[in-house]
Amino acid sequence: MDNIYTDLAVERREMYTEGKDVEIEGVSVDILEMENYSVTRIEVLNRNGQEIMQKAIGKYVTIDVPSLNVADQDLKDEISKVVAKEIQGMGYNKDDSKVLIIGLGNWNISPDALGPKVVERVLVTRQYFVNYNKEYDETVANVAAMAPGVMGITGIESMDIVRGVVDKIKPDLLVAVDALASRKMDRVSKTIQIADTGISPGSGIGNKRMALNKETLGIPVIAIGIPTVVNAATIVNDTLDLILDSLKEQAEQGREFYNLLDQLSEDDKYELIVEVLNPFMANTIVTPKDIDVTIDDLSIILANGLNIALHPGIDLKDVNRYLR
Amino acid sequence: MDNIYTDLAVERREMYTEGKDVEIEGVSVDILEMENYSVTRIEVLNRNGQEIMQKAIGKYVTIDVPSLNVADQDLKDEISKVVAKEIQGMGYNKDDSKVLIIGLGNWNISPDALGPKVVERVLVTRQYFVNYNKEYDETVANVAAMAPGVMGITGIESMDIVRGVVDKIKPDLLVAVDALASRKMDRVSKTIQIADTGISPGSGIGNKRMALNKETLGIPVIAIGIPTVVNAATIVNDTLDLILDSLKEQAEQGREFYNLLDQLSEDDKYELIVEVLNPFMANTIVTPKDIDVTIDDLSIILANGLNIALHPGIDLKDVNRYLR
Amino acid sequence: MDNIYTDLAVERREMYTEGKDVEIEGVSVDILEMENYSVTRIEVLNRNGQEIMQKAIGKYVTIDVPSLNVADQDLKDEISKVVAKEIQGMGYNKDDSKVLIIGLGNWNISPDALGPKVVERVLVTRQYFVNYNKEYDETVANVAAMAPGVMGITGIESMDIVRGVVDKIKPDLLVAVDALASRKMDRVSKTIQIADTGISPGSGIGNKRMALNKETLGIPVIAIGIPTVVNAATIVNDTLDLILDSLKEQAEQGREFYNLLDQLSEDDKYELIVEVLNPFMANTIVTPKDIDVTIDDLSIILANGLNIALHPGIDLKDVNRYLR
Amino acid sequence: MDNIYTDLAVERREMYTEGKDVEIEGVSVDILEMENYSVTRIEVLNRNGQEIMQKAIGKYVTIDVPSLNVADQDLKDEISKVVAKEIQGMGYNKDDSKVLIIGLGNWNISPDALGPKVVERVLVTRQYFVNYNKEYDETVANVAAMAPGVMGITGIESMDIVRGVVDKIKPDLLVAVDALASRKMDRVSKTIQIADTGISPGSGIGNKRMALNKETLGIPVIAIGIPTVVNAATIVNDTLDLILDSLKEQAEQGREFYNLLDQLSEDDKYELIVEVLNPFMANTIVTPKDIDVTIDDLSIILANGLNIALHPGIDLKDVNRYLR
Repeated sequence: MDNIYTDLAVERREMYTEGKDVEIEGVSVDILEMENYSVTRIEVLNRNGQEIMQKAIGKYVTIDVPSLNVADQDLKDEISKVVAKEIQGMGYNKDDSKVLIIGLGNWNISPDALGPKVVERVLVTRQYFVNYNKEYDETVANVAAMAPGVMGITGIESMDIVRGVVDKIKPDLLVAVDALASRKMDRVSKTIQIADTGISPGSGIGNKRMALNKETLGIPVIAIGIPTVVNAATIVNDTLDLILDSLKEQAEQGREFYNLLDQLSEDDKYELIVEVLNPFMANTIVTPKDIDVTIDDLSIILANGLNIALHPGIDLKDVNRYLR
Repeated sequence: MDNIYTDLAVERREMYTEGKDVEIEGVSVDILEMENYSVTRIEVLNRNGQEIMQKAIGKYVTIDVPSLNVADQDLKDEISKVVAKEIQGMGYNKDDSKVLIIGLGNWNISPDALGPKVVERVLVTRQYFVNYNKEYDETVANVAAMAPGVMGITGIESMDIVRGVVDKIKPDLLVAVDALASRKMDRVSKTIQIADTGISPGSGIGNKRMALNKETLGIPVIAIGIPTVVNAATIVNDTLDLILDSLKEQAEQGREFYNLLDQLSEDDKYELIVEVLNPFMANTIVTPKDIDVTIDDLSIILANGLNIALHPGIDLKDVNRYLR
Repeated sequence: MDNIYTDLAVERREMYTEGKDVEIEGVSVDILEMENYSVTRIEVLNRNGQEIMQKAIGKYVTIDVPSLNVADQDLKDEISKVVAKEIQGMGYNKDDSKVLIIGLGNWNISPDALGPKVVERVLVTRQYFVNYNKEYDETVANVAAMAPGVMGITGIESMDIVRGVVDKIKPDLLVAVDALASRKMDRVSKTIQIADTGISPGSGIGNKRMALNKETLGIPVIAIGIPTVVNAATIVNDTLDLILDSLKEQAEQGREFYNLLDQLSEDDKYELIVEVLNPFMANTIVTPKDIDVTIDDLSIILANGLNIALHPGIDLKDVNRYLR
Repeated sequence: MDNIYTDLAVERREMYTEGKDVEIEGVSVDILEMENYSVTRIEVLNRNGQEIMQKAIGKYVTIDVPSLNVADQDLKDEISKVVAKEIQGMGYNKDDSKVLIIGLGNWNISPDALGPKVVERVLVTRQYFVNYNKEYDETVANVAAMAPGVMGITGIESMDIVRGVVDKIKPDLLVAVDALASRKMDRVSKTIQIADTGISPGSGIGNKRMALNKETLGIPVIAIGIPTVVNAATIVNDTLDLILDSLKEQAEQGREFYNLLDQLSEDDKYELIVEVLNPFMANTIVTPKDIDVTIDDLSIILANGLNIALHPGIDLKDVNRYLR
């Protein structure tokens, strides 16, 4: 019924409420506007909200930072702090929590490598707790981190690797970092979503795998993602709208055609585009030219955010020192 | 007047001759159809050809291989051999030629890294000629290779680096390898262009730099390229055409709109799309999801092709042995 | 009592039998001499053999290839075939075996990255068996592969990750690839050991982790390794011997000193050197200058060997086609 | 006559003055001891100094930082500042200098990749001066940077590439960064040498190339290096001394042997070791196990030092922001 794909709760809500005055029944929204960024806290409260949003019941925090992709160091630090605050605000980690950070995605595909790159950079400490046989430390939390790869690389479902490791090391909290797909180019590299509803590896760019969430793992799962691609159909869809807008003022037939397309539901139009595009666009991504470099920057912002959020002794003043 | 960008001579010709029976005056064309590939040899003969083609006077060989992006080893080997034959067919290298291979492009941007990756893999031999003070060898040609980077990385025009090196080592032939932009997604990773008209670094994706060609360097310049991206506007343009085709059979208004758009020249339509897209699509690339892996494969095919073409003692039987 | 570290059974045997006529009781040895390589098949048969060899009961095959580090393509192919034959000779894999290949070691330390690099290159097929719900294929075996990293990177014992994954995907056979330490520089990059006694991650360069073997995992474990480093103490030890040899012919005092040192057991001498070296050599490795490049070549030889050994439809003729 | 290789002026001086009270005639020395580091400023003043030091006439600043390889962020920042001060103290760069930074070494050999890694990270600005046609900027100097590779990779002398680029872009100052060889393991990753006498690419690990200095290029050349390897012979040499020290107290024969070796000059002993080692140690390096990671850290310290030294508007407060 609804095939406009997006990983972002904030985009699902937009699609539904755009141009309307009312909120979705079963969804609460709280928006904080700041100078350099805004935070939208969406909570899907019940079945009705879940059905309309196509998103599981739970909390979705979106941090929108219009200039994140060209951020200077001050803005990067500011956003790491916001990320840390929102992770802590979820309420799942304490100073003595054992945390496992998972970086999902394919490290051989640049815009999909966000998760593995965060894992490379985040401060890992579990080895000290194991080697010194400690349960608690005043300044540092117990953190492990790994990138399970994707099935095309390992032949193993990333979910199976994660579940296997969770069984062995029994963390109290799983944090999963993943690259997302957005509907809009202007969200790519500019929006951070933090949710407590878990993650479905790979769904953002097509293939479904078993989910990572509280039901399947038995521990809370915080999912952190940043859109790094849009799919080609949404680009065409959006452009077509803009073209029609511009044409309808120019000619009678344009207006009529516009009316014709306008009668199609947004979904039908999108389906038509997907149908037309698919034969020659399967497996195509649309991404910023400088995505390799941007992904590096974004992975540092998230790694710093995680380091501040998880370790009691790390604050912004010295967070860049703990980067690997 | 004409802003539909493509690096491929074969696409320029297509745009002009599509649906027409006549060839461009001042352009000769010779097409060879094989089972797995076709070779189109275009020669721009005079000013008139140059103006219409928007391509300098000279030879342009296009090797189209529909399944190159998913080639098995046999096909890869076959295409390396075709590449070698077409390079030799240009008539610029002899067994005792001193050749400098330049890999243009930004190694930090996956689809732009084709040139640097070929340079990494091609057999480099000049050091032996220098160290043993030799002028000629029966089996191996005198080959040097380097990737000059891009101005955003080094602060230096790649052209200046190449000219500086050419001044010092005085090669007889320059071969420049570069990633190209295509108008059509279905040429990406599937078409190899070999030309003797030199190359303008970076022009394929936006910024102009001084050209590398016989005039500016004083030696013949063979340019080898493979399209690895299309720009977003061409995607929208092509999709729109397909949508209109599909709609015009469905409704009166669709047909009328089609007629309206049909009256616009192809260029006007493209310009309209670029105008609409630009504000939110600047610096966006459209590329296959698996481009990082494909670029690796393509760089091996070209490196093997160059090794066969340049070194008298290397043929297909053992060419994979000389890969680095 | 015995602190001369080596991962190679063939070196343990050498230390014991050097200059003697008898074999170790409880150890059987079978040597095959070929033009380009030799194969030594050592079997530790009982407790006595185990104690003297300091190696668990089981089979140890050593392939010595004096020019492996500078091998041309023919020799590389020949050795891949020998590796395949010796893996099959162990008798643990059948055409329908489910195999998990594990690449041990730290991918951030060049000479320790052999295992991860083999895993990157080996043909992985399990995803097709899962996606098409197949149990058996005539040409391709069911193979998965992963590199668990090391505790310093992930905070997780590599053993725990492997055991977790084995629990989930239940392979019939585990193949573990690892970089080894040798006593002699002239074995580095030139010797391949294949054993059926499992592996102790990290032991080769200092830290002990839980073992991967039939007892701990419940399935056979084939360990494949190549020495890529020697430790600094063995270098000094060997050089000292050579110096003394050269000096004893030159002077009375040299001979006397030689006699003095000669009276020390080999172990005491080594201990003395370790003691002297340790304060300023901890964490030092001795490795060939070109190890980064050599590791790449060796990983291809092993990946090809594994592909031939495991997949019924792959033989040497086309094995290079399945490399990733 | 003297074959104990070292790139460090401070080690040459040590060899000569060790255990003596007098300074070398023709060499001036100034030592600054600080809490975390010391700075030794050596100036070779005349021919006599040059002959004894085996180092060209000019200034050599050595910054010794005993815990540099395990530095925390405060120490790293402190050392970047010291590096900046010593570069400026050389007196060759002004706010409007055009500077070319060259990263020498082979990026495929981990301990040789220091120069290329600094070049990757240093702030490059020349493109803005070119694109905006500016001669001077109040906050940012005109800096270009490139890594020419090594002859084994490109077939081209790195010297030729550098001279070619210098000819084209005509900088006022060349800064060359290179990995060095030290005699002592305890200087590896802990000592920074800054000299104004230029550099001979590759000499540190064996092969001689044409020098980069004021005579050959016509502009001042500052060379910055950090030892990242020692050669195997020096390890054996040093260990042997320690062993003899320990043995001479234990036995008459030990003492006699010690006396025998003591009668050999240091050079003869070293030569003997090299002779014995060479057949099986050619091309071997001795380096810290974690060199890949350490090189990354060191390249950041040097890149920050260069950014502070060269750009008038960058100081330590914000220097980490300009890292790439």
